Amino acid sequence: MKLTILFGGASFEHEISIVSAITLKEKLSGFDLSFVFCDQDHKFYSIDESKMKAITFSKGEHKKMPELYVSVGRFIQKGLFGSKEHNGVFLNLIHGADGEDGSIAALLDFFSIKYIGPRVDASVFSYDKRYTKWLCEFKSIKYLKHEELDVKEHNNINMPFPVIIKPSRLGSSIGVSIVKEESELDYALDSAFEFDSSVIVEPFIDGVKEYNLAGFSVNGEIHFSIVEEPHKNEFLDFEKKYMDFSRSESVLKADISDELESKLKSNFEKVYKNMFEGALIRCDFFVIDGEVFLNEINPIPGSMANYLFEDFKGSLELLSNSLPQSKRAKVNYEYIHSISKAKGK
Amino acid sequence: MKLTILFGGASFEHEISIVSAITLKEKLSGFDLSFVFCDQDHKFYSIDESKMKAITFSKGEHKKMPELYVSVGRFIQKGLFGSKEHNGVFLNLIHGADGEDGSIAALLDFFSIKYIGPRVDASVFSYDKRYTKWLCEFKSIKYLKHEELDVKEHNNINMPFPVIIKPSRLGSSIGVSIVKEESELDYALDSAFEFDSSVIVEPFIDGVKEYNLAGFSVNGEIHFSIVEEPHKNEFLDFEKKYMDFSRSESVLKADISDELESKLKSNFEKVYKNMFEGALIRCDFFVIDGEVFLNEINPIPGSMANYLFEDFKGSLELLSNSLPQSKRAKVNYEYIHSISKAKGK
Repeated sequence: MKLTILFGGASFEHEISIVSAITLKEKLSGFDLSFVFCDQDHKFYSIDESKMKAITFSKGEHKKMPELYVSVGRFIQKGLFGSKEHNGVFLNLIHGADGEDGSIAALLDFFSIKYIGPRVDASVFSYDKRYTKWLCEFKSIKYLKHEELDVKEHNNINMPFPVIIKPSRLGSSIGVSIVKEESELDYALDSAFEFDSSVIVEPFIDGVKEYNLAGFSVNGEIHFSIVEEPHKNEFLDFEKKYMDFSRSESVLKADISDELESKLKSNFEKVYKNMFEGALIRCDFFVIDGEVFLNEINPIPGSMANYLFEDFKGSLELLSNSLPQSKRAKVNYEYIHSISKAKGK
Repeated sequence: MKLTILFGGASFEHEISIVSAITLKEKLSGFDLSFVFCDQDHKFYSIDESKMKAITFSKGEHKKMPELYVSVGRFIQKGLFGSKEHNGVFLNLIHGADGEDGSIAALLDFFSIKYIGPRVDASVFSYDKRYTKWLCEFKSIKYLKHEELDVKEHNNINMPFPVIIKPSRLGSSIGVSIVKEESELDYALDSAFEFDSSVIVEPFIDGVKEYNLAGFSVNGEIHFSIVEEPHKNEFLDFEKKYMDFSRSESVLKADISDELESKLKSNFEKVYKNMFEGALIRCDFFVIDGEVFLNEINPIPGSMANYLFEDFKGSLELLSNSLPQSKRAKVNYEYIHSISKAKGK
């Protein structure tokens, strides 16, 4: 299969995206892969497969590689002797800002470039944790009640400790802290506000059961991964999660009842349907007193959660053949014609 | 003031956008205006002010004009003898798809082009009428209860007649019908589903009081237009609304109590704050038994609702000096460096 991996982005998760792309290079060996890197200035470069190493980017060597311009249906490399193209299906592997906030989705949609990844609406509802809660509310999915803070209100929390503090719009545990008592609050809020002007506060439930489930839809039917019970310290910190993005070895299926598994799947389906088509996403759930709560949606999971799928390559092939087609209006200037006629000119 | 008007788009409201742009050309005389046209194939053209007539587009003459490419900070016109640029502040005047669904917003944000218009989140919550209701719910704004239909369920309505049927994601009354009895339902649904795969059904309230209010935020403070009571037949049909987009004469302030005016303003503010910054929007409200209900949000109103502002040009100047700045992550490759070190390479 021919596939172009789009990675990088101007985001706190830029480096994570590079690690993810390198992992997929290994994991998808046999595919006809190309790599397009988006740097922090939003310039695009074509990266030769042999240069797909972390050091290429940390040393700025990508700047010596061919620059690409986005155009209808493709990314194009203009040169003295004609132009080279990247077309076909893209995989949006830009984690965090740009990739998950709807920017890249809109860009690719606008230029009619086919891609695996969340569409604009799906991005907005998964990137901002506040809107994920709105989605839950309207789709009858349980979620943790929360408080929202913006910089001006700093420090007004009504919830009892311990709480967990998160920037509203970042993934990968960046800026996230657990606060066990009042004295730790200021520092935690400062850390979170460093990354976002909006912060959410949720109850921290010690030892809560956590399960991850990934999946994607093919012709209206969801294909699920295995359910994983993630290992964690108190919670996954950034460095831990960072390493997590380079995972490629399969994990063991969580030891849970069929009933719980089917509850997790039905919640996943409620999240996914009529929203995430075209994407392979991972939902992270909590289970509290036998009830399933959505914790968060990863619309572009680290290394695409390859380790949760028995046949990851086959999964991507299936998905790439079932991407949503955007219906575009046809303009015929009917109204302008009729008005011109009415005006007699 | 220097301002580039971006109009057109691949949308059912493409022609409306052309009319809107021509109206603004007159209304903003004295400004240093440029015009960028987005055609239905998503190609951009630089349109000379003298060619800003409906017939230019309906005859396809724009294709003879210089094509533009989007790049960081600007639209650029490449030629044999160097390149010409459109930079500075843009006004997103693409109504409907592309302009209001978040695509153009993401494109301009991504390429760091300053613009007047709704950002991506704001677009998603105003373009899709279902999500507007979610927004209302979480911001404590009253809204009409509704039912959602998708093609498969076609015809399952529990609400008593009369009802109003609307495509979920279109403006300008396209595909909208009032259904007074069961026998009219099929035709109305067919019309709506022609434009969208999702349709909403709301109660139709005969003779309901309707008020429009526009505004924008400057440094956190909302500047309001006058309140208008729109003239209507049963409701504004497309042809009527179409003419509406060329409005440029001031209207009379609605004859309402101070109390109602301040209720309308406070509802507008709830909609706008922390969501629509950077845009001049118009909110259309219903008033039922003295209570204000949000009907819909027009994030790019026809000809920017110029006729509702006493000093429209001054308003645009104020707004263009108070556009949101997107904060972009700075990448320093700290993690890759530390991992490379740990690996000893």
